[in-house]
Amino acid sequence: MIGSDKVHKILYGGDYNPEQWPEEVWAEDMRLFALAGVDTVTLNVFSWASLQRSDTVFDFEKLDRIMEYVKENGLNVCMATSTAAHPAWMARKYPDILRTDLTGIKRQFGARHNSCPNSPTYRKFSVKLAKAIAERYKDYDNIVAWHVSNEYGGACYCENCAAAFRRWLMRRYGTIEEVNRVWNTSFWGHTFYDFEEIVPPDLRSEAFVYDFDGSIRTNFQGISLDYMRFQSDSMLECFVLEKKALKKITPDIPVTTNLMGWYKGLDYFKWAQEMDFVSWDNYPECDSSPAYPAGFHDVCRGMKDGMPFALMEQSPSVSNWHPYAKLKRPGVMRLWSYQAIAHGADTVQFFQMRRSQGACEKYHSALIDHVGSEHTRVFNEMAELGAELKKIGAATLGTRTHSKVAIVFDWENWWALEMSAGPSVRIDYLKEVETYYSALFRQNISVDFIRTDSRFLAYDLVIAPLLYMNKEGYDDKVRAYVQNGGTYLATYLNGYVDENDRVLLGGYPGRQKDIFGIRVEESDALPPDESNRFIYKGTQYPAEILCDLIHLSGAEEISTYESDFYAGSPVLTKNRYGDGVAYYVGTHSSEEFYATFLRDICETLFIDPVLNAPLDVEVRCRENEENRFIFILNHKDTATEVRMKREGTDILTDRNYQAGDFVKLERKGVAVIRLK
Amino acid sequence: MIGSDKVHKILYGGDYNPEQWPEEVWAEDMRLFALAGVDTVTLNVFSWASLQRSDTVFDFEKLDRIMEYVKENGLNVCMATSTAAHPAWMARKYPDILRTDLTGIKRQFGARHNSCPNSPTYRKFSVKLAKAIAERYKDYDNIVAWHVSNEYGGACYCENCAAAFRRWLMRRYGTIEEVNRVWNTSFWGHTFYDFEEIVPPDLRSEAFVYDFDGSIRTNFQGISLDYMRFQSDSMLECFVLEKKALKKITPDIPVTTNLMGWYKGLDYFKWAQEMDFVSWDNYPECDSSPAYPAGFHDVCRGMKDGMPFALMEQSPSVSNWHPYAKLKRPGVMRLWSYQAIAHGADTVQFFQMRRSQGACEKYHSALIDHVGSEHTRVFNEMAELGAELKKIGAATLGTRTHSKVAIVFDWENWWALEMSAGPSVRIDYLKEVETYYSALFRQNISVDFIRTDSRFLAYDLVIAPLLYMNKEGYDDKVRAYVQNGGTYLATYLNGYVDENDRVLLGGYPGRQKDIFGIRVEESDALPPDESNRFIYKGTQYPAEILCDLIHLSGAEEISTYESDFYAGSPVLTKNRYGDGVAYYVGTHSSEEFYATFLRDICETLFIDPVLNAPLDVEVRCRENEENRFIFILNHKDTATEVRMKREGTDILTDRNYQAGDFVKLERKGVAVIRLK
Amino acid sequence: MIGSDKVHKILYGGDYNPEQWPEEVWAEDMRLFALAGVDTVTLNVFSWASLQRSDTVFDFEKLDRIMEYVKENGLNVCMATSTAAHPAWMARKYPDILRTDLTGIKRQFGARHNSCPNSPTYRKFSVKLAKAIAERYKDYDNIVAWHVSNEYGGACYCENCAAAFRRWLMRRYGTIEEVNRVWNTSFWGHTFYDFEEIVPPDLRSEAFVYDFDGSIRTNFQGISLDYMRFQSDSMLECFVLEKKALKKITPDIPVTTNLMGWYKGLDYFKWAQEMDFVSWDNYPECDSSPAYPAGFHDVCRGMKDGMPFALMEQSPSVSNWHPYAKLKRPGVMRLWSYQAIAHGADTVQFFQMRRSQGACEKYHSALIDHVGSEHTRVFNEMAELGAELKKIGAATLGTRTHSKVAIVFDWENWWALEMSAGPSVRIDYLKEVETYYSALFRQNISVDFIRTDSRFLAYDLVIAPLLYMNKEGYDDKVRAYVQNGGTYLATYLNGYVDENDRVLLGGYPGRQKDIFGIRVEESDALPPDESNRFIYKGTQYPAEILCDLIHLSGAEEISTYESDFYAGSPVLTKNRYGDGVAYYVGTHSSEEFYATFLRDICETLFIDPVLNAPLDVEVRCRENEENRFIFILNHKDTATEVRMKREGTDILTDRNYQAGDFVKLERKGVAVIRLK
Repeated sequence: MIGSDKVHKILYGGDYNPEQWPEEVWAEDMRLFALAGVDTVTLNVFSWASLQRSDTVFDFEKLDRIMEYVKENGLNVCMATSTAAHPAWMARKYPDILRTDLTGIKRQFGARHNSCPNSPTYRKFSVKLAKAIAERYKDYDNIVAWHVSNEYGGACYCENCAAAFRRWLMRRYGTIEEVNRVWNTSFWGHTFYDFEEIVPPDLRSEAFVYDFDGSIRTNFQGISLDYMRFQSDSMLECFVLEKKALKKITPDIPVTTNLMGWYKGLDYFKWAQEMDFVSWDNYPECDSSPAYPAGFHDVCRGMKDGMPFALMEQSPSVSNWHPYAKLKRPGVMRLWSYQAIAHGADTVQFFQMRRSQGACEKYHSALIDHVGSEHTRVFNEMAELGAELKKIGAATLGTRTHSKVAIVFDWENWWALEMSAGPSVRIDYLKEVETYYSALFRQNISVDFIRTDSRFLAYDLVIAPLLYMNKEGYDDKVRAYVQNGGTYLATYLNGYVDENDRVLLGGYPGRQKDIFGIRVEESDALPPDESNRFIYKGTQYPAEILCDLIHLSGAEEISTYESDFYAGSPVLTKNRYGDGVAYYVGTHSSEEFYATFLRDICETLFIDPVLNAPLDVEVRCRENEENRFIFILNHKDTATEVRMKREGTDILTDRNYQAGDFVKLERKGVAVIRLK
Repeated sequence: MIGSDKVHKILYGGDYNPEQWPEEVWAEDMRLFALAGVDTVTLNVFSWASLQRSDTVFDFEKLDRIMEYVKENGLNVCMATSTAAHPAWMARKYPDILRTDLTGIKRQFGARHNSCPNSPTYRKFSVKLAKAIAERYKDYDNIVAWHVSNEYGGACYCENCAAAFRRWLMRRYGTIEEVNRVWNTSFWGHTFYDFEEIVPPDLRSEAFVYDFDGSIRTNFQGISLDYMRFQSDSMLECFVLEKKALKKITPDIPVTTNLMGWYKGLDYFKWAQEMDFVSWDNYPECDSSPAYPAGFHDVCRGMKDGMPFALMEQSPSVSNWHPYAKLKRPGVMRLWSYQAIAHGADTVQFFQMRRSQGACEKYHSALIDHVGSEHTRVFNEMAELGAELKKIGAATLGTRTHSKVAIVFDWENWWALEMSAGPSVRIDYLKEVETYYSALFRQNISVDFIRTDSRFLAYDLVIAPLLYMNKEGYDDKVRAYVQNGGTYLATYLNGYVDENDRVLLGGYPGRQKDIFGIRVEESDALPPDESNRFIYKGTQYPAEILCDLIHLSGAEEISTYESDFYAGSPVLTKNRYGDGVAYYVGTHSSEEFYATFLRDICETLFIDPVLNAPLDVEVRCRENEENRFIFILNHKDTATEVRMKREGTDILTDRNYQAGDFVKLERKGVAVIRLK
Repeated sequence: MIGSDKVHKILYGGDYNPEQWPEEVWAEDMRLFALAGVDTVTLNVFSWASLQRSDTVFDFEKLDRIMEYVKENGLNVCMATSTAAHPAWMARKYPDILRTDLTGIKRQFGARHNSCPNSPTYRKFSVKLAKAIAERYKDYDNIVAWHVSNEYGGACYCENCAAAFRRWLMRRYGTIEEVNRVWNTSFWGHTFYDFEEIVPPDLRSEAFVYDFDGSIRTNFQGISLDYMRFQSDSMLECFVLEKKALKKITPDIPVTTNLMGWYKGLDYFKWAQEMDFVSWDNYPECDSSPAYPAGFHDVCRGMKDGMPFALMEQSPSVSNWHPYAKLKRPGVMRLWSYQAIAHGADTVQFFQMRRSQGACEKYHSALIDHVGSEHTRVFNEMAELGAELKKIGAATLGTRTHSKVAIVFDWENWWALEMSAGPSVRIDYLKEVETYYSALFRQNISVDFIRTDSRFLAYDLVIAPLLYMNKEGYDDKVRAYVQNGGTYLATYLNGYVDENDRVLLGGYPGRQKDIFGIRVEESDALPPDESNRFIYKGTQYPAEILCDLIHLSGAEEISTYESDFYAGSPVLTKNRYGDGVAYYVGTHSSEEFYATFLRDICETLFIDPVLNAPLDVEVRCRENEENRFIFILNHKDTATEVRMKREGTDILTDRNYQAGDFVKLERKGVAVIRLK
């Protein structure tokens, strides 16, 4: 797998659970895998209970047979450690392993992902199991990666977590006085005199259900924000403990865990630093915009500064847990697989290889359906793709994407922003980020997602939607970037608070006023049925959600509000600062506005699309020192064509194109052009 | 009451709670009962607390007086055992009697139906009370039936239930290995080594609140399905324990308990086997379709293979717990009473006789309103009906209904189907059953509801909507029925799984592929705003909710999809199999489609309406060896008329009709014609 | 403050939390307060944790400095006792102080208002703290009022409350037999033999979540109604305990606590009897009708029989906890401040003086924004108002309002009415009250809100919307009022039950049938999409929510229903009774109907508006023996003018008007005319 020198093609396969089936079925699986071009299976994801029947008794006999069988059949293995669901006997014997949920009620055995991340039992036994598996299978050279646990997530509010939280706070803040300071506990008389007085912010303490919309909110931002950090760190510690155990035994096998897309609970950027490579599970709704998975592909690529990642799971057709399990239409599975590759994936893996006979995912699609044969639409499409990926071989492996535009994304900002009591329940970080991303996506301008501590200098344009939190030093970094010629764009609610959600005093946007040459005095939160308006280049656009009332202090106004008592005051501003430019967008507007406004900025900066293409035809580029690949992806339901700017060969069809030729694609069609 | 030889007319009356009133009111009650033609009262439904003040001290003094008074006034008694609400002192002294709810929180005293069905305290004391009542009143020959507890329902998740569940599992499955097999516990590492590791599937374990729609769902179908069975069985055991105690003392008095219509929690078909006769409480919303109560009347008739049942409760006018307690319009109470009789009821009982002065049902309508007099619309309508029923006398008692069409209904299928994670949250068993039932109802074609183990041979047409679960042997039964000339109709999601929700492998519909001559490869779940289309006999109909993609293997296609990638593939099929025919309806369509399609099938089979009648005029038939009664029920808001096919006499008006004559009915009017 | 002889102007200022800021900021605060005309600050609202660090150790050092500083700067102090949020250490050491919520789960430390009102710890320490503060600062003659706790509210269901509830019941009812009687426990077998059997009506017992709309409802009205009384009383006891402690030390400083508007949980009328003056916090949504705050101003004035009250809090601009924190438009803060004064307020106070840097109210608006300077719109508007209030001085202090119309409002009625199971979930007490109030408000007819035990004789018209509960003697009081010439208007659901929600038998409206000369036989609850109709003076109006079916027994009908089976039966009636008239409105209709109908009644009674004014221009009057002030408030977004009937001077502008002159007001403008 990525990072492993055993891998010479785009890995193809996915989750395989032979332990759910009698052994006579295994041979048929192998026949079908061969037909479909499957070369890699993820094994052992949920076998803890069957592998370990007591504190001391392990039973690897069946897994041994599986490993041998799989090896004999020439398959690579992505080997899971099985620690995502603890055994029932362990829950009974060691109840500390069970989570306590947000209501304060302790769970019993059931579901999965229910281990308390601070349970001594969980930590001891999960590491012990990882170690035992590594020892037993370390000599299998077909193991291409370790897959620790599975889709980490959730949170726990038990006594063990409370104690661990206090220790985490002591390490972070040193003294209780500093906790009081950063959480502003003089508000509402929350002053603490001893760390022992602090309890987790659950529904028994600071969390509450907001009458207005049933959402969970907090009465105290400081503690709730730190508890998010703490839980993310606690689970990361579990990952790291297993990883270290594995690395001691098999130092050369890369270690990962599969991420869940825009999952709010874990700071994936922080996690990525501990992962040898990033992998994720892509389950868009059938009618999702193609920008949705594309965006998270780009986040994954950004997690390790451009390094290719693994598509660890996607569904061959339906995802059973979608409210309406709509079929992936013919061609869509292939199209979305190539989209992953186009954005930096070096694997195409699925959940799952054979559809389960029972329990809650039995209606999730699989390579091998309940009918058991290869005579299904889904199998055929997967076999065709398997053959294509064999043909591609190692060509695209390790190639990278070079973007001139970056969007700053930050999990801690996400938490703080949406935890805020005010100014509006309509504030939605992902939606705002997606607004900017989609506008660029639709114009085929490649975007990197970067961290607040990433290097900005490589980019011509850095966009920071709703970057409410100004971490220590961040404003200096932006200042330097713009002074050195960079173009930076921020939005309403920019730079209000520090890492602890304490307002940076002196007027908004806090420490960044000089950069933008403005001061925001007030912000008008509009209900869903109200909007203001502004005119940009002759066209009127809506101003929604929040309208900043802006004073200029050096910036020029690009546009002003059209109505209400702040009519005539600036809504869009531009500030020349050093050698660069800082834009400020003081409201939320329509898709059409962002398309126009961002295109104009890009044109100024000579940032061009990869190719000019019709709407809904995506074009991406991956390259290395030898080759440059242009991926053309037709998301439309009709055929299309795209004109080549340079000579190249479609590596799927071996067809050559001269500059000026049209590449024709059928509905949902794909071309991968290796440029000359 | 039904089954009792003391009963010589349609019993008329209902719940009577004199213990809530001073004795001076009782005499007035008797005067008013006589005016209204009331002959039967249900007594003692909620008196446990007043009858028993400690472990050993009973106080029957007031009930004695009530029984005497009622007897003196010539009233029959349906005698309740009062065990639907345990006393407060008992809850305090023996907390094991209190339920633990789905959240895992133990209840305190309050409401009703809160006794844990596996509480040793509850079982001991409820039987003791039933026995004491039977001993005390066994010589009252006006007791026409025992009414055990009241509207059983709810579920408990306490430690006693957990232990009883484990014993239930041991009895059902023998070994833990078999539990693992049927629940498919190799999925998500749920392997159990000891029954003691199993905990009830509540919100602390396998149950969860689904974000999408706030519904309660399960992470593990096997255990949750068995827990439904177990809770239904546990409450049934409570019923049986009381029943046995009663039968020892009064072997000749029939025993029942009142069912709650389409209540999902209890497998009423299994319960009915333990009941001497079936009784139920009919509380439709004021604007319900008449098909709604009609359907459950037919279920009740089916529970004991056609035996008449008791309408134990209905409301004289408003039901206080409806969101909007709309008045039953003039004539509606009478109309719905005759509807019950038309479908097989041999009683017309109400909740309640005198409106309570306090607590939560004080705004539920009653024969005697808070005004206390007979001078109310509701009293007058009830008195008129009382007089009519006296006139009818024993004429209709014990008559039966002969239907040529049956619908298979199954509680376990209901549970499994709606527990499924996928393919669509829109799957709704009752709605699909109602769709088929209503189409026939509106055409005045009588339908029996039958069990999966009922005899099919008596029917010309058997319809099995959404019969997802194929219990052991069920397919053989259908096979034999069709081979012998029967016509069978099934729908999408037919026959997928066995009793444990394990998929029957080899392609859908599992073991029934030969019967239908098809294989379903995929099913496309459509969101509410999407649909496909098909044409039947020149008219286009929608295909909604789920669209099966069908391969023919012997069947002929009746219609095909009109759009999407599966346009042209079959949606309706017909398979000649042996001497019979099997229809398959691969999607959900509109009311208009079912009306046409089912009429065509019925015509083929020479299944005719009882009479031809205008829309919303219901016509039913009950008969015995001597007589045949035609019930004509005008559900419309305008007058109507129906043409007689044979000579007969309206037993309400003594009016004679010749064949060809028109029976005229005013709005909400009723005629009961005894055919010559 | 009100009641204090130190106060010679409308107090202006509000909540000030210098303890959240370094001392160097305080000097700047003083400078800005002086600029803004602030003369009064509310101190020490949430400082318990910082004032008391253990059972015995207090630390007043910072508060001492604050008090000195504030005094030196000539500010009045509204001194809070800080008992609205207990310290974290106390929660840890004495968990009895923590509430148990409706689910039965015990809270941990967090949020505010979480002290159990029956906690011995809370009662002991809260009184101890109040006493300590009073002792320490008793000699500060700038303390104008004590502000006990803050916005009391919430409810607790813990064991201590259960025990206290049983004692409360013993005091109220004496014997368990009487409890059984008033709660009607023979219903559903709820008979109690011992007070110890009674548990609080929480979600473990009588309360439940209603499937239909997710609301919390009760299975047993009697206990739930008494628990509301008990919790209100329990918190009131806490208030009284602190008040007594304060009064011992500073007998001359008036004591209050700030109420929360239409807050259902506490019987504010009962509370007001213990408060030296009433104060409240006014936080309307930005787009609220002006009638909304006006109504509660009038309630506050009514609480102490016309005595002026304090506006303790309002927001300078946004309220952060509104779903959409829309800015108060220019002029609105001033307009609403004068509205408060017009309705009887003698203070204009805000939350808060300086915007917090952290925690959940940091985006609530303040005099001093995060920018920290006086150069903001909000500061300027507040400074202008501050100057005006200085100019007004003592002129309006203590003046009163004389209304000819009263609306009866009753908390216990509110509880009982909305607890009822039936007849409709659409029954909404506040909405019905608001319907009548608004119709009069828009016509500038002054209304007093009065209690059921207030004197009626001072009023020409008394309106009792949805007065479902007829307390002992209430009907006699109405009878006497009407007989003596009063006009009384009641509505559907009038007078059904006694104090314990037991129906008053003999037909509705219970004991008041003679007064209205009618009997209501039935009530038809209509769903939201249905309505009946009636014609009043030639115009047709809708009949919605509930339609009473009325028999006349002396009354004359004003209008009848137009449709359904009760077409032609009365909906509006009028009964001459003694020297007076009783109107009955048997349904809910439209705004237009109430405007017309009430205007007609008022005209009959010679009840005139203060002045004739355009729609949305409010005119109110306050007067004392020397002066009469006319407040003219333009709620419109455009300029307007109002014609004077008498000569007078605008005390804001010193402009004189002759009778017949027009007072011109800009959008949101205000005039305060002192009549000659």
